[in-house]
Amino acid sequence: MCDVPRVTAAVLIIGDEILSGRTQDSNLAVIARFLAPMGIELMEARVVPDIESEIAAAVNLLRRKYDYLFTTGGIGPTHDDITADAVGAAFGIPVEHDHTAMAILAERYRPGEFNERRQRMARMPRGATLIRNRISTAPGFQIENVFVMAGVPKIMEVMLDDISPRLKRGVPLVSRNIRCSLPEGQIAEQLQAIQSAHPGLRIGSYPFFAPPGSGGASGTTLVVRGRDEAEVSTAADEVAELVKSLGGIATAVE
Amino acid sequence: MCDVPRVTAAVLIIGDEILSGRTQDSNLAVIARFLAPMGIELMEARVVPDIESEIAAAVNLLRRKYDYLFTTGGIGPTHDDITADAVGAAFGIPVEHDHTAMAILAERYRPGEFNERRQRMARMPRGATLIRNRISTAPGFQIENVFVMAGVPKIMEVMLDDISPRLKRGVPLVSRNIRCSLPEGQIAEQLQAIQSAHPGLRIGSYPFFAPPGSGGASGTTLVVRGRDEAEVSTAADEVAELVKSLGGIATAVE
Repeated sequence: MCDVPRVTAAVLIIGDEILSGRTQDSNLAVIARFLAPMGIELMEARVVPDIESEIAAAVNLLRRKYDYLFTTGGIGPTHDDITADAVGAAFGIPVEHDHTAMAILAERYRPGEFNERRQRMARMPRGATLIRNRISTAPGFQIENVFVMAGVPKIMEVMLDDISPRLKRGVPLVSRNIRCSLPEGQIAEQLQAIQSAHPGLRIGSYPFFAPPGSGGASGTTLVVRGRDEAEVSTAADEVAELVKSLGGIATAVE
Repeated sequence: MCDVPRVTAAVLIIGDEILSGRTQDSNLAVIARFLAPMGIELMEARVVPDIESEIAAAVNLLRRKYDYLFTTGGIGPTHDDITADAVGAAFGIPVEHDHTAMAILAERYRPGEFNERRQRMARMPRGATLIRNRISTAPGFQIENVFVMAGVPKIMEVMLDDISPRLKRGVPLVSRNIRCSLPEGQIAEQLQAIQSAHPGLRIGSYPFFAPPGSGGASGTTLVVRGRDEAEVSTAADEVAELVKSLGGIATAVE
């Protein structure tokens, strides 16, 4: 299984509204969960403001470093929607009105409503391929290994459906989650030993705390991840045994 | 007001669990809303996996590019908590057990419980200053312009309280939000004109869509931001007038 090449990806979230705290991003987690079953590893994410040079620089760095780059935001009709221009600048490719995108958008609007600003939503770097959007029609686009999507979560999600068949697959990570009633510090030493015995796996340890006075439980969620299902299973069993041997309760969770 | 130097910041979110989609990050928005009233501009955010070289490279780039860098995650007692080592490596400073942190932690545990792994939570680059954590005791640390905080949201939030007095202030951005009943494409052209007339401001346009069949409203939230309160106010009034002149309803919102 180790002979299958890894497939990697990055996410670039574009928008002042995320950096100002006005909007809580939710697209990153959605993209991560979309990629995981395809065996595409999300290696990095960045959030940049609506500044063309910053967007272009990040696009160029990330598209070269990883197999795929997914961007969200900045493809609407207003002056702050500059992603198409930034991506065009990154590739050194002129940005123009795409004929198919123009036709799709023209059909959506009533006569006279398809104004110059709305036509901007059909602009993309020459040679780009459309990403369909069955919710609000305005398409995203793909150019080489870069997928440019809307920032509105529901629209981004349907764009992922359209992108899915275009992506090469890797070997999906298998993961087993164990909810443990003990604090991290009590299991850390032996957990390190299990990790050391399985260098091909990644074992994560995530404490959770009950709100004071809630009567809820505190403890640690332990996550064993890897490409070799049998080894993940073995290591997860070892983790569960460890918890029990220390007097804790281990529960397999989704 | 333009003579006041800008104060800038970046956020570095450390953790496989964010990139796998297991955990939805909420710390970025919290930090953004913490910085805004102090006039500290959050310019960029990155999410990196639990890989020391990746963390160190991002730390070095971001601490040099911005006035402040805030990191979250990776400071617990387990093997996957490698932020202190990564930050030490980034600065080229040895990482050791801090005496004060050791004393704070020793007090928290019962005799025999303060094991070697828990003592790891006192490790930080030599010369670092503690960031207090009144919830779970284990401190974060500051080294130069880098603030290393926990990933657990409640703990990160109390660490921000401790950091606040250490930060220099800029001129806060003033913002006015206008909820508009018209779609973006209908206001985009004249909105661009208002933006062009106020190059010192940033006008953002964010569409919202009612779920199909909900009977709810769709429209656009328009956000006018800038440092000059009078100009922000003027431009916001112009935006509201524009919406009304096009037959829409404009409502000031928080």
